[in-house]
Amino acid sequence: MSFIKINGMELIMELEFLGTGAGSPAKSRNVSSVALKLLEEINEIWLFDVGEGTQHQILRTTIKPRKVSKIFITHLHGDHLFGLPGFLSSRSFQGAQKNEPLIIFGPQGVADFVKTSLRVSQSRLSYPIKFVELTQDGLIYENNRFRVYAAHLNHRIECYGYRIEEKDYSGELLVEKLIADQVPSGPLYGQLKAGKKVTLTDGRTIDGHDYLGPTRKGRIITILGDTRQTAAIERLAERADVLVHESTFGKGESRLAHDYYHSTCVEAAQCAVRCHVKQLLLTHISARYVGIQALQLAKDAGKIFPNTKVVKDFDIFAVPFPTRKRGVHA
Amino acid sequence: MSFIKINGMELIMELEFLGTGAGSPAKSRNVSSVALKLLEEINEIWLFDVGEGTQHQILRTTIKPRKVSKIFITHLHGDHLFGLPGFLSSRSFQGAQKNEPLIIFGPQGVADFVKTSLRVSQSRLSYPIKFVELTQDGLIYENNRFRVYAAHLNHRIECYGYRIEEKDYSGELLVEKLIADQVPSGPLYGQLKAGKKVTLTDGRTIDGHDYLGPTRKGRIITILGDTRQTAAIERLAERADVLVHESTFGKGESRLAHDYYHSTCVEAAQCAVRCHVKQLLLTHISARYVGIQALQLAKDAGKIFPNTKVVKDFDIFAVPFPTRKRGVHA
Ligand SMILES: [Zn+2]
Ligand SMILES: [Zn+2]
Repeated sequence: MSFIKINGMELIMELEFLGTGAGSPAKSRNVSSVALKLLEEINEIWLFDVGEGTQHQILRTTIKPRKVSKIFITHLHGDHLFGLPGFLSSRSFQGAQKNEPLIIFGPQGVADFVKTSLRVSQSRLSYPIKFVELTQDGLIYENNRFRVYAAHLNHRIECYGYRIEEKDYSGELLVEKLIADQVPSGPLYGQLKAGKKVTLTDGRTIDGHDYLGPTRKGRIITILGDTRQTAAIERLAERADVLVHESTFGKGESRLAHDYYHSTCVEAAQCAVRCHVKQLLLTHISARYVGIQALQLAKDAGKIFPNTKVVKDFDIFAVPFPTRKRGVHA
Repeated sequence: MSFIKINGMELIMELEFLGTGAGSPAKSRNVSSVALKLLEEINEIWLFDVGEGTQHQILRTTIKPRKVSKIFITHLHGDHLFGLPGFLSSRSFQGAQKNEPLIIFGPQGVADFVKTSLRVSQSRLSYPIKFVELTQDGLIYENNRFRVYAAHLNHRIECYGYRIEEKDYSGELLVEKLIADQVPSGPLYGQLKAGKKVTLTDGRTIDGHDYLGPTRKGRIITILGDTRQTAAIERLAERADVLVHESTFGKGESRLAHDYYHSTCVEAAQCAVRCHVKQLLLTHISARYVGIQALQLAKDAGKIFPNTKVVKDFDIFAVPFPTRKRGVHA
């Protein structure tokens, strides 16, 4: 585990929204896709949903398709899926290498769709794809810096939400304290930094934990697919630093939202309160809500959970480190 | 067969380009799609190829998806195909009715792709789709006003070009001549207009052909997919009023064009001369040719075939009626 500062700057993790509309593309909003940019952490970008035209949206950003190493599909409705074959082709065309594989996570059927698309179009990609089709809730991916959990939501079609947990950062090595205690510099600094006990040449045994600054909690990002309110959301969103929640319907439309397996802005805000999240980003905005009406969604949600934003295509949000203590995801 | 004038105006048939780029979407050009607008003739629009983002492009035009009754796919490369599932879904979402069916023509595999896409996304369309998968050259569709022929081109993947022939218009009934010859008006005018012989109450037998103005030839539009130069093009393009031809490569790149199963602007122009077409529209323009370089493609082609244009997204071209006689498509 490395430090969270590089040259004194905090590691910047960003969410960049590529499509924030519901159902069909509109002039003002494309269909669903959001990029989680982990460039400083692991030099990767993860995409959540790939609606049609996502590769077109990416053309207007600084995102390099070859940096996209993981794709998480929430559900297989077209507005979350139909941009996937085109994106995969362009990633190949734009020079992704054999050693730059891609993992696609999603409900059962995503592999069938992608394989059929690539087969009929006789697309030969320059890089390998691995499919992870989800069938149950739990940990679906882990590397040295992150864990990703998935859980079933409640939509008309099988749909997953994702919780991305950054692992905690160990404290910085307190070099000044080591010098004051006359611990000679050298390879043993690495062992101390790892929290190990070491015996010095003068016979003293010291514990690395005594020479480490405070550990820092990693960040938690929760990205839900389309859903009604359901208990699984609480497991996914508990104490998240950012919750990306759909808001297909407005205040007073909870009946409609329920009938169409969606949520209202108010339900999303109540969920944010219940889950003790830090920030709520509302997306999947219906074309019925334009301009001032979209602001009304934010206003109605903000009365319940003040730190709420209705996102627009190309909005970028930095995900801040948590400042207070919190429990661990069970 | 009706007259070609309504209230003295000629029937306007238009080609509207929705995507004119090659391979991958670029900021300046989307991937392939062109609409043949037959609104005045038969109140229909026909789409040729549906690259990803075609439905997004349509949002910026006056085209109503429900008016699109036929889709012709030239080949199954992604940049000509991957917008199809999204377009079909939006056509449903935007209110196409059960009695507004769609026919999709294309190479074998197009039905597999569409059916897989609709199945995994659990899309239930509001209208029926009929698939016509092509396997050989010839007449593939006919209604009371048009005939459509398809022929194999020479591309890396199975690829078709399409020739759309408007049926000839019979001449107008010469009412003044009928009055001068004291032929009484009434239902027999309809028979005369149909070119039949009728016997009048005064015993005279007259021939409708003697009372008809000149017939007018219908228009011919040829839309090719990606292709090297090949004999089939001549059958498709002979004496076309408009030839839509790919121009993926520029002058001096015929070797490259051949290697990649494409054509140069010069080859397209030579083809236009050889086929005696009236107008050449160059499309499928590589992102390597932007601004002044795209103009160079038109310039180089224009030296060989003057009536050449390099098309841009959203360009609209009226297809004029032919003014001189010509042979019939064999
Ligand atoms: Zn959905
Ligand atoms: Zn092609």
